[in-house]
Amino acid sequence: MNPSVEMMKNMPMSDTSVMSGMDMMAMQNLVDAASACMQACTMCSDAMAGMDGMGTCAAVCANCADVCSTMMRMMLRPMGMERDSLMAMLEACITICRVCRDECSTHIGMSEACAMCATACDACMTACQDMLSAMQTPAA
Amino acid sequence: MNPSVEMMKNMPMSDTSVMSGMDMMAMQNLVDAASACMQACTMCSDAMAGMDGMGTCAAVCANCADVCSTMMRMMLRPMGMERDSLMAMLEACITICRVCRDECSTHIGMSEACAMCATACDACMTACQDMLSAMQTPAA
Amino acid sequence: MNPSVEMMKNMPMSDTSVMSGMDMMAMQNLVDAASACMQACTMCSDAMAGMDGMGTCAAVCANCADVCSTMMRMMLRPMGMERDSLMAMLEACITICRVCRDECSTHIGMSEACAMCATACDACMTACQDMLSAMQTPAA
Amino acid sequence: MNPSVEMMKNMPMSDTSVMSGMDMMAMQNLVDAASACMQACTMCSDAMAGMDGMGTCAAVCANCADVCSTMMRMMLRPMGMERDSLMAMLEACITICRVCRDECSTHIGMSEACAMCATACDACMTACQDMLSAMQTPAA
Repeated sequence: MNPSVEMMKNMPMSDTSVMSGMDMMAMQNLVDAASACMQACTMCSDAMAGMDGMGTCAAVCANCADVCSTMMRMMLRPMGMERDSLMAMLEACITICRVCRDECSTHIGMSEACAMCATACDACMTACQDMLSAMQTPAA
Repeated sequence: MNPSVEMMKNMPMSDTSVMSGMDMMAMQNLVDAASACMQACTMCSDAMAGMDGMGTCAAVCANCADVCSTMMRMMLRPMGMERDSLMAMLEACITICRVCRDECSTHIGMSEACAMCATACDACMTACQDMLSAMQTPAA
Repeated sequence: MNPSVEMMKNMPMSDTSVMSGMDMMAMQNLVDAASACMQACTMCSDAMAGMDGMGTCAAVCANCADVCSTMMRMMLRPMGMERDSLMAMLEACITICRVCRDECSTHIGMSEACAMCATACDACMTACQDMLSAMQTPAA
Repeated sequence: MNPSVEMMKNMPMSDTSVMSGMDMMAMQNLVDAASACMQACTMCSDAMAGMDGMGTCAAVCANCADVCSTMMRMMLRPMGMERDSLMAMLEACITICRVCRDECSTHIGMSEACAMCATACDACMTACQDMLSAMQTPAA
């Protein structure tokens, strides 16, 4: 378990009902996946900015990096956890990771960065979906 | 017209269809409103962190600052404009601005920062809704 | 005076000695200049990512956008104001704005975005220097 | 080796001289340390915002989270690597991590979050210093 999740277990929360249905493994996976995706997208955006004709891919990756970073930071603020906000941001992150994955997937043959970025986006998308499911499952 | 919007008018775009229905006044209002909201939320979060019992408000404002910043940056990347991404992020920003406005509105009597933050969130929410409407209107 | 500076005048601060020598006009100029520079750099980075051979310029602008945003957010947190932190971040912002201005200046003839970005970087650099000077001036 | 560093080894760079003296283990340590510090500071800021009288600690942690995130993103953009920019940002990050570590260290007895945050800041500071040293060492 990474230190962030370890910290979170001990933290005060504003709305324990939001967290009560949360799977802590899903939380750990989400923070790790978002962090990895932000890093991959930042690097892929940088690499694509230097290649002819890849401006759209660079911009889509830059957007995805920012969205993953913001979503992750919301997950790291237990005091601010509120169901509508978290779900709306997870939905946005899923959409933007999908768009980035689809864009990068078209360049896998020519770019190792795009291949790794597409994989990271796909994993982040899945982690967001798992968290959404966990939030929608009533606590036992 | 602020310099950002002036710059944007001359920029290449990946998907002109996304922008074709866009009202440039709505874009200017959105960038300005998001920037003002990000600033107000950052300051309100800071002020609330120093007040007893206001941790939830501080966290909600910190989330809103990050979301406004990310949404604004997406709007400033014409090469990455893609309808699903923009609409999902606008929806998320509307939700989070509403949550922040509602939270800050409960402290207006005791905090000038919350009063100004609630006003900024409300304006950003409206600007996001106007942009969503502009994106949904078919170009003439 | 923009709303952020208006808010700041009423805010609690952790270390009033840091702010005591601060010129509030310099603060207003700094927040406005950093916000404009962040916006210009984000757009210029996006435009350059779509142009052949401009990957370095795109990356330098992306760095400058992030640094201006972070510096501005530090200025919007009066509770966290601490002399060494603020001065180190202002120094970093000055260096990075200078590098970005110099890079964009070499493309002014071919890119309107670079011309506007170079101007914004220069103004942000000056505003940072003015704030550094104000912080180094003993309060009367 | 994390995926980011794996990606970086294959990426084009604008100025290979900046990287020529770089220890790739120092780079891996730096990205990992900055990511962990950003996460710890975000959570610590959130926890402190909810505690009476801890507003300064909350704000210092919020600043440190933003600075670590921006420094890390600069390290993930090989196309934008430029010696003066990187060194100035590393110096700023060292200063701000030190201030945050010192602030959190005063609350270790009462807050587990501060204890973990102080450790993360210390590790990030060390990783920044190692990178600065690697950049100052002439390549063999």
